[in-house]
Amino acid sequence: RINGCTEYDAAYFQSYSHVGIHEEMIKDRVRTETYRSAIFQYQSAIEGKVVVDVGCGTGILSIFCALAGAKRVYAVDASEIAIQANEVVKANNLSDKIIVLLGRVEDVDIDEEVDVIISEWMGYMLLYESMLSSVITARDRWLKPGGLILPSHATLYMAPITHSDRYNESIEFWRNVYGIDMSAMVPLAKQCAFEEPSVETIIGENVLTWPFVVKHVDCYTVTIVELETITAKYKFVSMMQAPLHGFAFWFDVEFAGPANMPNDNHSPSSLGEGSTSLLGDSTTVSSDACANGSNQRRKRAKSMETLVLSTAPEDEPTHWQQTLLYFYEPVDVKQDQVIEGSLTLSQSKENPRFLNIHLEYTSGGRSFVKESVMR
Amino acid sequence: RINGCTEYDAAYFQSYSHVGIHEEMIKDRVRTETYRSAIFQYQSAIEGKVVVDVGCGTGILSIFCALAGAKRVYAVDASEIAIQANEVVKANNLSDKIIVLLGRVEDVDIDEEVDVIISEWMGYMLLYESMLSSVITARDRWLKPGGLILPSHATLYMAPITHSDRYNESIEFWRNVYGIDMSAMVPLAKQCAFEEPSVETIIGENVLTWPFVVKHVDCYTVTIVELETITAKYKFVSMMQAPLHGFAFWFDVEFAGPANMPNDNHSPSSLGEGSTSLLGDSTTVSSDACANGSNQRRKRAKSMETLVLSTAPEDEPTHWQQTLLYFYEPVDVKQDQVIEGSLTLSQSKENPRFLNIHLEYTSGGRSFVKESVMR
Repeated sequence: RINGCTEYDAAYFQSYSHVGIHEEMIKDRVRTETYRSAIFQYQSAIEGKVVVDVGCGTGILSIFCALAGAKRVYAVDASEIAIQANEVVKANNLSDKIIVLLGRVEDVDIDEEVDVIISEWMGYMLLYESMLSSVITARDRWLKPGGLILPSHATLYMAPITHSDRYNESIEFWRNVYGIDMSAMVPLAKQCAFEEPSVETIIGENVLTWPFVVKHVDCYTVTIVELETITAKYKFVSMMQAPLHGFAFWFDVEFAGPANMPNDNHSPSSLGEGSTSLLGDSTTVSSDACANGSNQRRKRAKSMETLVLSTAPEDEPTHWQQTLLYFYEPVDVKQDQVIEGSLTLSQSKENPRFLNIHLEYTSGGRSFVKESVMR
Repeated sequence: RINGCTEYDAAYFQSYSHVGIHEEMIKDRVRTETYRSAIFQYQSAIEGKVVVDVGCGTGILSIFCALAGAKRVYAVDASEIAIQANEVVKANNLSDKIIVLLGRVEDVDIDEEVDVIISEWMGYMLLYESMLSSVITARDRWLKPGGLILPSHATLYMAPITHSDRYNESIEFWRNVYGIDMSAMVPLAKQCAFEEPSVETIIGENVLTWPFVVKHVDCYTVTIVELETITAKYKFVSMMQAPLHGFAFWFDVEFAGPANMPNDNHSPSSLGEGSTSLLGDSTTVSSDACANGSNQRRKRAKSMETLVLSTAPEDEPTHWQQTLLYFYEPVDVKQDQVIEGSLTLSQSKENPRFLNIHLEYTSGGRSFVKESVMR
């Protein structure tokens, strides 16, 4: 039914046909309420306009857009969940406004230009799943010049972390198992626990210093080629003495208009109780990496009204949690010790939805390389 | 490397090569400490004797047996985890006592008779994974007449349950999603949530009445053929008025000797702090179903010293939790209302490690059939 689709794509789309994954995403109130707030914040840009929802799932964002007054919403999803979205749309008497299309944005036809693209495309570690390329495709195929993309910007962060509890629970545990020394399990335990990135929730106390911006994406201008390989050189100065267990990755996305588009500046109280974070909250002030990969960071000025959906350890947890890349051996770092190196994220050649992670790090005169794949 | 092995077997054994699954099982203190207690309770039957550990995993039960004085322990596992078990054995200088064999009990050679079989073979819903047949094979190949099998008996229970929280969370949830009626999702949500058995933890308050014994297994006499299809007719009388949401399944296993074998009757305090449940605890008194499938039950006399490992909802939780079979529609039952029907568990022809479940139930004059597969 879906053309031009690899077997990996098919498996990926199939995975979204299970209801549980949509239940989890919808029940993530930070996620869903921030999107709803953003849609109503931009109500004047949506009213009477044409919207495309890239990867609509059960269709809830499309319905929010229809309720915000959109003239027409194209709700596109390549998973069979689109059939359910269509049922929900019919049951809500919105079939005249919301057109559900089962297929990839690369393949479906929309015979008009659109004013707004909305999409919840973010994967673990921001780029896992590579769904941003579908948003870019939709933008390049259908978005009017000056049109709105929600979210508009995304930023991937990394920071060194300490997490002895986690390390002890999976590794040190084997050294005394009901009185038996099972240390012989440790090498395999390290491989099983830490070879691949691990999605889990950490807290601010696990983070050794301020995060570094791995990649900042402007959805209005980003290209698919730009996302194929992302390289960054980083440098941290540890704020404390602790065993360094690895790095954490998280992201935030902002809902800003294209240059010079005013938003409606609704007060959040008009949108129901929100766990949305308005900028001004210092925890969500993001910074921008220089394109040349240097570790300089500069604050970007964001308007006070820009909604930010943050998945940082110090913010309210979301279903994305954080993504952790653990070392096999902790590295003891002192206060003010430098941790530096480089990171390359690239699409797997085996399956473009997988993410290859090449990490180099040096601290206290010792250098390491860690290669892993997020599958 | 493993002969006579289907591709399903290979996938099954492969799944046990990941360390995390062994970490979870070992960290289940109810499980591991009850096994340890049982081994030391039968120390006089193990000292100077030959033991085989069927599905040894990381080898912890084999090491307990060696520490209890076994002359020789054959630790058999068809998963590559056996390689790790061998490393652990070497590191503990037990290579002269514990012989690790990588292979299926059907394929490996042991050139002597054994006095004791120990195995932690129980799967979800007791019979999922079908590993009991490996214990039977080991028994028939190697166990001396009058030898000891630990555990010696196993009992699978079922009971009707009410669980509105769970039903509301996955099903009723869709009726009002951030103010939107997404009831159109309900049929698919029911299918995704309740088509297959669900492994989760319930509590005593979810159970509507006393459990029914689906199957009692005597490991000294059970045959492989006897396990291929298990049929039971059940009859419950609800002790309360509540929506009936489905049935829960759980099991216990007992560590009893063959007829007339005394155990050492160690005091539990000599075995370290235990969460083992000694019989006499009324919650673990099991009963026996008639072989002809009638719903009559009779108490079996167990000695006060028989250790029982229980996975019942009213006992301390284990990693087995309980297995729930939910209906798509709750059935309202009144106090003293009869719930009756039949249950057939059979090995899937597609994959013998899967379990086909055919459930018929009648209550208040309405009859239902539910077919599901535990994969």
